[in-house]
Amino acid sequence: MKRIKLVVAYDGTNYCGWQIQPTGITIEGVLNQTLTQLLGEEIRVIGASRTDSGVHSLGNVAVFDTETRIPPEKICYALNQRLPEDIVVQSSCEVAKEFHPRHCYSEKTYEYRILNRKIPVPTLRRYTYFYYRSLDITKMQQAAQYLIGKHDFQSFCSVKSSVENTVRQILSCNVEKSQDDVITIRVTGTGFLYNMVRIIAGTLILVGVGEMKPEQIPEILNQMQRSAAGPTAPAQGLTMIGIQYKCTKD
Amino acid sequence: MKRIKLVVAYDGTNYCGWQIQPTGITIEGVLNQTLTQLLGEEIRVIGASRTDSGVHSLGNVAVFDTETRIPPEKICYALNQRLPEDIVVQSSCEVAKEFHPRHCYSEKTYEYRILNRKIPVPTLRRYTYFYYRSLDITKMQQAAQYLIGKHDFQSFCSVKSSVENTVRQILSCNVEKSQDDVITIRVTGTGFLYNMVRIIAGTLILVGVGEMKPEQIPEILNQMQRSAAGPTAPAQGLTMIGIQYKCTKD
Repeated sequence: MKRIKLVVAYDGTNYCGWQIQPTGITIEGVLNQTLTQLLGEEIRVIGASRTDSGVHSLGNVAVFDTETRIPPEKICYALNQRLPEDIVVQSSCEVAKEFHPRHCYSEKTYEYRILNRKIPVPTLRRYTYFYYRSLDITKMQQAAQYLIGKHDFQSFCSVKSSVENTVRQILSCNVEKSQDDVITIRVTGTGFLYNMVRIIAGTLILVGVGEMKPEQIPEILNQMQRSAAGPTAPAQGLTMIGIQYKCTKD
Repeated sequence: MKRIKLVVAYDGTNYCGWQIQPTGITIEGVLNQTLTQLLGEEIRVIGASRTDSGVHSLGNVAVFDTETRIPPEKICYALNQRLPEDIVVQSSCEVAKEFHPRHCYSEKTYEYRILNRKIPVPTLRRYTYFYYRSLDITKMQQAAQYLIGKHDFQSFCSVKSSVENTVRQILSCNVEKSQDDVITIRVTGTGFLYNMVRIIAGTLILVGVGEMKPEQIPEILNQMQRSAAGPTAPAQGLTMIGIQYKCTKD
């Protein structure tokens, strides 16, 4: 029995998110089905980031246990031949049997992209959130700095979440604008609450448009209630970029 | 009667190209239909670049004549409310009645994008051509230099074309690689033959992979037959970036 780690990229547009649902196609469901067919044994993957419907990934992580004799590094090639074109496994390797993608210490990076111009661009519509009003990047950058560190992020957690401990640590939070009018919010942290990055994006947008001041962020954190922060920005702007583990070399 | 110029962006994935076809939905067809509905008069646009099926645009140009009282600059907003989300008019303005998007002198820019890595990236699949074998950018850049200037580009013209004069002028041709493994070939010229940019891309790929030498480009031009150049690279890698006219200010 081997434990295999996959790095999974996907275009989330046509999926009901990562996690298996009673109805609707999910990334987890497609991976389980395709791996089960490929390996001829019942496979159930464990995912690291259970991304929402419409969220994309360049480097989500999943593991599964198998008896297969296919060399671990080759599994991704065999798998990609069977997967739909909007899910592509970037690599596969063997990891320790104890390795768990959610329980091991990790640093996750997400990017939230905003297309900030007067008129939408069709080729960016699937991977950015189009926002018409002009955003002040400098103010968004100032606000982002207040989020860095260990804080109780309850104000930045969906009310649908039932998690008890809402303290999380953000290691970096950068805001940049590219030539093609795309503002990218890049956040790295050791853990995230449900909808946390999208609520951070929604709050930084309010700061960028002048409806909130950067200095209000500490106050929002202190209030510890969802209504204090900005709205949850739409799913299609969010991409899971990658996950660094300390307990595994890959 | 006014002549209105539109700058048209689109995701070409779901269209049978620009030009109206007996079967299949085209950009030109959707624009004619939507403008006719919006303005309450029969509208027929004239396009600058009649892009192929699957080719994208950030800045194609179209003109049409109208009696409407809607201010020219506002037409794009009214139009975008009725257009599907994969076609977005970037601007609208009045131009001289003599202005013709194909007959007036212009400088057109196209980009051809190649995703050059071992494994595809799902979020780039619609807008790049995935090419597995490693490409030598320096050699592609050297080859690109031979294309600049006024040449007979018959070798770089689809055999389906019946155009007689195949002399065209390329003003610049740059090849760059970005951090995300995307090689962009950016070509500006005063005119292009049918499939010319895609054949240039296909030929530069052969150079990049070592099957052709940069110094062979002049020889390919001299042979003046399609078979001398490389293959026609797939449509989804091509984007019409924009068109500069000398006879109009916009």
